[in-house]
Amino acid sequence: MPDELPFAELDLDRTARRGYPEAVYCAGKTPEQVAAIAAAVRARPDVVTLFTRAGPEHAKAVLSELPDAFHDTDAALLAWPPEPPEPDGGLVVVAAAGTSDLPVAREALHTARFLGRRTELVVDVGVAGLHRVLRRLDLLRRARAIVVAAGMDGALPSVVAGLVAAPVVAVPTSVGYGAAFGGLAPLLTMLNACAPGVAVVNIDNGYGAGHLAAQIAAPFPTDQG
Amino acid sequence: MPDELPFAELDLDRTARRGYPEAVYCAGKTPEQVAAIAAAVRARPDVVTLFTRAGPEHAKAVLSELPDAFHDTDAALLAWPPEPPEPDGGLVVVAAAGTSDLPVAREALHTARFLGRRTELVVDVGVAGLHRVLRRLDLLRRARAIVVAAGMDGALPSVVAGLVAAPVVAVPTSVGYGAAFGGLAPLLTMLNACAPGVAVVNIDNGYGAGHLAAQIAAPFPTDQG
Amino acid sequence: MPDELPFAELDLDRTARRGYPEAVYCAGKTPEQVAAIAAAVRARPDVVTLFTRAGPEHAKAVLSELPDAFHDTDAALLAWPPEPPEPDGGLVVVAAAGTSDLPVAREALHTARFLGRRTELVVDVGVAGLHRVLRRLDLLRRARAIVVAAGMDGALPSVVAGLVAAPVVAVPTSVGYGAAFGGLAPLLTMLNACAPGVAVVNIDNGYGAGHLAAQIAAPFPTDQG
Amino acid sequence: MPDELPFAELDLDRTARRGYPEAVYCAGKTPEQVAAIAAAVRARPDVVTLFTRAGPEHAKAVLSELPDAFHDTDAALLAWPPEPPEPDGGLVVVAAAGTSDLPVAREALHTARFLGRRTELVVDVGVAGLHRVLRRLDLLRRARAIVVAAGMDGALPSVVAGLVAAPVVAVPTSVGYGAAFGGLAPLLTMLNACAPGVAVVNIDNGYGAGHLAAQIAAPFPTDQG
Amino acid sequence: MPDELPFAELDLDRTARRGYPEAVYCAGKTPEQVAAIAAAVRARPDVVTLFTRAGPEHAKAVLSELPDAFHDTDAALLAWPPEPPEPDGGLVVVAAAGTSDLPVAREALHTARFLGRRTELVVDVGVAGLHRVLRRLDLLRRARAIVVAAGMDGALPSVVAGLVAAPVVAVPTSVGYGAAFGGLAPLLTMLNACAPGVAVVNIDNGYGAGHLAAQIAAPFPTDQG
Amino acid sequence: MPDELPFAELDLDRTARRGYPEAVYCAGKTPEQVAAIAAAVRARPDVVTLFTRAGPEHAKAVLSELPDAFHDTDAALLAWPPEPPEPDGGLVVVAAAGTSDLPVAREALHTARFLGRRTELVVDVGVAGLHRVLRRLDLLRRARAIVVAAGMDGALPSVVAGLVAAPVVAVPTSVGYGAAFGGLAPLLTMLNACAPGVAVVNIDNGYGAGHLAAQIAAPFPTDQG
Amino acid sequence: MPDELPFAELDLDRTARRGYPEAVYCAGKTPEQVAAIAAAVRARPDVVTLFTRAGPEHAKAVLSELPDAFHDTDAALLAWPPEPPEPDGGLVVVAAAGTSDLPVAREALHTARFLGRRTELVVDVGVAGLHRVLRRLDLLRRARAIVVAAGMDGALPSVVAGLVAAPVVAVPTSVGYGAAFGGLAPLLTMLNACAPGVAVVNIDNGYGAGHLAAQIAAPFPTDQG
Amino acid sequence: MPDELPFAELDLDRTARRGYPEAVYCAGKTPEQVAAIAAAVRARPDVVTLFTRAGPEHAKAVLSELPDAFHDTDAALLAWPPEPPEPDGGLVVVAAAGTSDLPVAREALHTARFLGRRTELVVDVGVAGLHRVLRRLDLLRRARAIVVAAGMDGALPSVVAGLVAAPVVAVPTSVGYGAAFGGLAPLLTMLNACAPGVAVVNIDNGYGAGHLAAQIAAPFPTDQG
Repeated sequence: MPDELPFAELDLDRTARRGYPEAVYCAGKTPEQVAAIAAAVRARPDVVTLFTRAGPEHAKAVLSELPDAFHDTDAALLAWPPEPPEPDGGLVVVAAAGTSDLPVAREALHTARFLGRRTELVVDVGVAGLHRVLRRLDLLRRARAIVVAAGMDGALPSVVAGLVAAPVVAVPTSVGYGAAFGGLAPLLTMLNACAPGVAVVNIDNGYGAGHLAAQIAAPFPTDQG
Repeated sequence: MPDELPFAELDLDRTARRGYPEAVYCAGKTPEQVAAIAAAVRARPDVVTLFTRAGPEHAKAVLSELPDAFHDTDAALLAWPPEPPEPDGGLVVVAAAGTSDLPVAREALHTARFLGRRTELVVDVGVAGLHRVLRRLDLLRRARAIVVAAGMDGALPSVVAGLVAAPVVAVPTSVGYGAAFGGLAPLLTMLNACAPGVAVVNIDNGYGAGHLAAQIAAPFPTDQG
Repeated sequence: MPDELPFAELDLDRTARRGYPEAVYCAGKTPEQVAAIAAAVRARPDVVTLFTRAGPEHAKAVLSELPDAFHDTDAALLAWPPEPPEPDGGLVVVAAAGTSDLPVAREALHTARFLGRRTELVVDVGVAGLHRVLRRLDLLRRARAIVVAAGMDGALPSVVAGLVAAPVVAVPTSVGYGAAFGGLAPLLTMLNACAPGVAVVNIDNGYGAGHLAAQIAAPFPTDQG
Repeated sequence: MPDELPFAELDLDRTARRGYPEAVYCAGKTPEQVAAIAAAVRARPDVVTLFTRAGPEHAKAVLSELPDAFHDTDAALLAWPPEPPEPDGGLVVVAAAGTSDLPVAREALHTARFLGRRTELVVDVGVAGLHRVLRRLDLLRRARAIVVAAGMDGALPSVVAGLVAAPVVAVPTSVGYGAAFGGLAPLLTMLNACAPGVAVVNIDNGYGAGHLAAQIAAPFPTDQG
Repeated sequence: MPDELPFAELDLDRTARRGYPEAVYCAGKTPEQVAAIAAAVRARPDVVTLFTRAGPEHAKAVLSELPDAFHDTDAALLAWPPEPPEPDGGLVVVAAAGTSDLPVAREALHTARFLGRRTELVVDVGVAGLHRVLRRLDLLRRARAIVVAAGMDGALPSVVAGLVAAPVVAVPTSVGYGAAFGGLAPLLTMLNACAPGVAVVNIDNGYGAGHLAAQIAAPFPTDQG
Repeated sequence: MPDELPFAELDLDRTARRGYPEAVYCAGKTPEQVAAIAAAVRARPDVVTLFTRAGPEHAKAVLSELPDAFHDTDAALLAWPPEPPEPDGGLVVVAAAGTSDLPVAREALHTARFLGRRTELVVDVGVAGLHRVLRRLDLLRRARAIVVAAGMDGALPSVVAGLVAAPVVAVPTSVGYGAAFGGLAPLLTMLNACAPGVAVVNIDNGYGAGHLAAQIAAPFPTDQG
Repeated sequence: MPDELPFAELDLDRTARRGYPEAVYCAGKTPEQVAAIAAAVRARPDVVTLFTRAGPEHAKAVLSELPDAFHDTDAALLAWPPEPPEPDGGLVVVAAAGTSDLPVAREALHTARFLGRRTELVVDVGVAGLHRVLRRLDLLRRARAIVVAAGMDGALPSVVAGLVAAPVVAVPTSVGYGAAFGGLAPLLTMLNACAPGVAVVNIDNGYGAGHLAAQIAAPFPTDQG
Repeated sequence: MPDELPFAELDLDRTARRGYPEAVYCAGKTPEQVAAIAAAVRARPDVVTLFTRAGPEHAKAVLSELPDAFHDTDAALLAWPPEPPEPDGGLVVVAAAGTSDLPVAREALHTARFLGRRTELVVDVGVAGLHRVLRRLDLLRRARAIVVAAGMDGALPSVVAGLVAAPVVAVPTSVGYGAAFGGLAPLLTMLNACAPGVAVVNIDNGYGAGHLAAQIAAPFPTDQG
């Protein structure tokens, strides 16, 4: 049982307390630790569990215990049970500025999907060719929350936020040349977005972006929403 | 008329395009420029205009043209017309970790209020005395969006996000000793929050925090919300 | 005579060597030193001399020796003789993202003008309202070089560079909230512009931007241009 | 004998001078150098010697000379003689915010243990689930010194320090997403802790944290303690 | 009564919970807010209250309500009641590397004193003249905790920690030339001290240093100390 | 066809819009993605396509679809069709401060060449031996644009800009000892060049430097150039 | 007597121990403290005492006790006795890249002079006009040590070091536009000088530069020099 | 012949111009380039050539052309001809704070030796055990120049400079825990040394340190030294 793991204390009542399931951050854990957690998780098919930042060894450990788990290799993410819940709430659109931003964008997409939202993916809409993003404006304006993943200059969230009413969750990626400093440059760009309505999360943190978007687009539990 | 201002092009259709009114960032503008904008604004009493980062000279300039404008000196904010619109959407709770974070917190509060949300303020609930924030848990859990303003270690958003289902908009303040580096320390803390659901905005940017919270708590324009 | 100044050695043959006149950087010089340089300059009405970063005391010192000098207070710039040379070469367009970027933009404009280029100024075309910059596309596409001054997210040069064939000289300004870090944020954005064709200069360095644009738009001295 | 090592001068009288034994920092030393030091150490079974930051090659070198040495692979630490001294002084509690912080936490634990303190380990008590740390409050309040190892937001030391009378030794770890910048984020958080009583040591420096905690919890050599 | 302050919630039971009194951080508070807190404090003469980072206006506000408060202008600190409690626990020695470090050192000294410790001050013992610190070795070795305040290279804590058994609380100061970067240089030096036993606090944070030293030198509440 | 690529949207009309062809940034793309793009490119022999930052696997993928593509391994660049267009416009000179800067310099050279400029390469002309650069002054003064690639102190662009009338495109490289910080040091040097006329691009961004130089040296499309 | 100063312990035997006199760093000291030190100094006319970083109030305090002290206002330096000792050792040349670097250069010059060296000053020889420094090559090659003060790109020390056999003491100044970051840019340039033989000191630290140059150019006390 | 190398221009007259031989920085060069340079060097046995930062492949390339070259693997340095010149000038002492600093210290030592100085090496004299450095004071005081290599807190140069009359060349190393930031921490410490007389060079730049020390300790070419 989870409580007996000597190295981790699963936050079992997080779903009850916050309304969102547990996620297991695999980086920094040994495959053995991840396998033990996966085994503990098997006893709780009623809640979704995400495994994020799962390298090949981590993924193998999870699949040894949960062979039918959903697995997106590029996004380094697994989910179990493998089917997301029936969606409710508003639409979450995830946009990737460039192809190199796709792994982070897909981590966000799957997270929002497994947390119960409808999702759409938009790719290669960087600001160097404005017509590409303008062409998707209809879709973007239907969203209740938009995730934008961008590296290099990180300018896309500013542009998108200026065009829509919904909040934009901006996730900087570590894509780029030297002075991107591992994602610092787009991070600062997004924090300084001249259009209000940009919510910034950590560099390459697709999971956090998808989670935040899912919360924003959630049906409000009371009658106030 | 606004279009004729030689130094600014007011984004008059922003309300139409984004659903949110224009804000005039006063820092870096001369009092004369601010006064000219205020005069142009007077012709449009149907939309709210916010003047942010308004020092004493800026405030004087605004009030010379809009004498009945709402003015919160500590928050360096003015609004006109002086009465916020009838609120709709969900509740926005604004929490200040310490007394020194109040100016930023109030800038956020007024922004959300003038953008049409119901708001509540909670003060002095820093993590050094956990009982203070735990005592407000009921109020926090009623919110559709929570703004948390904190300087120094900036740890409060992590703690709050771990206790509620709603998104937390975290605004770092420049309050603190040397190694806070003008708000850099709480900014990094918030970006690295171990609890998902934290949306970070710029240092001391109460306006941006309030705007984002108002968007999150907005009634969704379609039937999906 | 200049050669006898005990604290400075004017680069008198710079015009001959580089084709561009001398500029006197006033910050860090005493008003007395600036006055002495202005007096030396008076003997050379055949070449333009610019005085940059001239505070009120510096300006007073220059005007005491060169009373008819051109003076733009906001741009902190003086020029003598007061009339720019007859323009040749291509058009230089200077764009300011926001009103607060105007002082830097005008320093660039005057520099290009006094170095012999035709110039046009465009204001308040930040990316938060894309329609504003798109409306000026015709003008922008007529330019041989475009200077873009922007603070905060510094995203405008990326967007402009993606729309035109001419090089964009990007000058970050120190306008913005805390995490702009005195212009560092837009500086990094510009260096990481996802559209090629962006030439970055120092923070708030309108003089350098205008000089570079004037060089780019210069008639080429040989038959190759 | 140690004095004859051509590349190191062991601080043999450190135990006499400071009351604490020598530690050999293996990173940056060749396995041959480490083996030579281990051989020299063998002549002094009366004092404990720690080998820290010992990679596999270093560990092999130590064990070739001191086959019965204590070895914790994850903590990259060896100790000889393999049994810690009889404990005295107060209790040292070591808390790890997450499973990924365990290697650093265990380096601290073993260091305190081999320096003569009673120790207890607490795992997975990050602030995202406050109930987990609150449940351990009794144990934490029995400690004379508490080591807290945390990456990401590094918020746990602030929270713990606000709940207890004992000093908290905070050791930031390099665990986390991009904007943790290799431990810089939790380091700054801890330096800015809004609760007084937090003693910060270097990133990932479990040895230093355990040593400092052992000093704080030491029986005071005179009658003043 | 404190509970009614609209802008602050005094942590009245902190003494009960942590064993240490409340401190009021004045920077960022208005004089009116500080005066209101001082008035509230007057009702509780049984516990010590410290007012830290109190500029002239803050001090005036405190003294208007608590005219007999202790006040050290250089240290920007007030305390009330004006007499520290009867000391117990071990000796706290506070060392200032240079004269310019004195304000921070004295803030530490008074804090430890009002928290109930015996204290001694040592001045001008920087490492550029080693004989000065070596001459005070007897006093340093009698301490249960040593505070070292140093700017510039911040090397003194390393040297002191190598000579004594007690923990050294290192507080970097913002004293120094350009590349000290407002205290960043000595902060990094102290975090990287090659001698173990150095506990680092925030730049210029004499209060935090004194508080931590007082905790380390405290009589242990149970029989384990 | 390109439009059907699921992970990228080629900017097919970029040549029409900007006058310059598409470049495919390979870093962060999988070899499969690069191969698919190369296959799509094959249908458009009328425009040049550059593949930049192409590691061995990327290069193999390109060559599998475009076997006759031009390939410079050191510069990590491929181009197809393999012959550059007939040159027009002014001369672009590319100077490398040291041998280690050659890969970046050659990426710039090939980019300018495939964008239609005549080019010359100058090597090993660092400022530590001024005579080397002075000896090339004639060539440098014939250029319409000069690219200077330099690591370490990055001083060469300042020196060159002081000697010529043409703009200098400065590209910092990540060559150097520790305090070069991966190219940050020469980047800052170039941004602070005391000679005006220096256009800075990103660290190691030879592609961007060559592109910008090609634009500067372009024949101006109208009669104004 | 000095020993009785309650806030400072003058390093009276420093001349004996190191061969160089005491310097009093005035920044961070009160005028009263500086005056007391000046009074103590008066009793020792046999050794030179320098007062560095002396603002107007500090200077007044020194002159009240030592009315005939040497005072260079721009360099913020005083010396007593007012006459430097008879020079010996080699020549120290001090070069200032620009006029704005003069205060730092003169602090270096006076320091070397009062420590007993012959000195020469060279001004306005920045690398933007190479002919200016080349013209002084004869003087530079006669020096035993050269101090170079430069802000902005800080490129001058690299260039000078490549031309001479003597060591170059490089002192970065805080002169420049935004991305000079208060002297960080020239500091990094100098540390990365591609010519060996550059000794870097702290930003704006003319005193340290002059002291180091005086040591380098000193007659060697034994027969080995 | 060297002049014909297509990728490098050897500075053949550097010995004539500066009095010091050429050094070949191998990092960033291919083994083929290094071998070609070594072959060119073979024709000039009259001057010493150093190969620095030579990894195993570089060393092999050098030795293939110059089989009898001197080679110190740890210091990654080769020299040819293999015997240093007959020493003259003053003594250079090289001190390594810890064993891990030895590679850098030995690079400095060999450089000074091959540039013609007598040298001595002192190891493991870090400030955590002051008695170790004090024991070597006689040797240190005989030196005309002292190189100190130190990582972590980098405090040793300050301490040594306070004890001797000769200049101290301080070379920070990248040895240490996380917050040493690859040598940044000791670099800042050394730049802020509270004792004057510290000449700082780049991180891990043993070559630069040895070269500078050799220049300082050189016999002065005129009668002034």
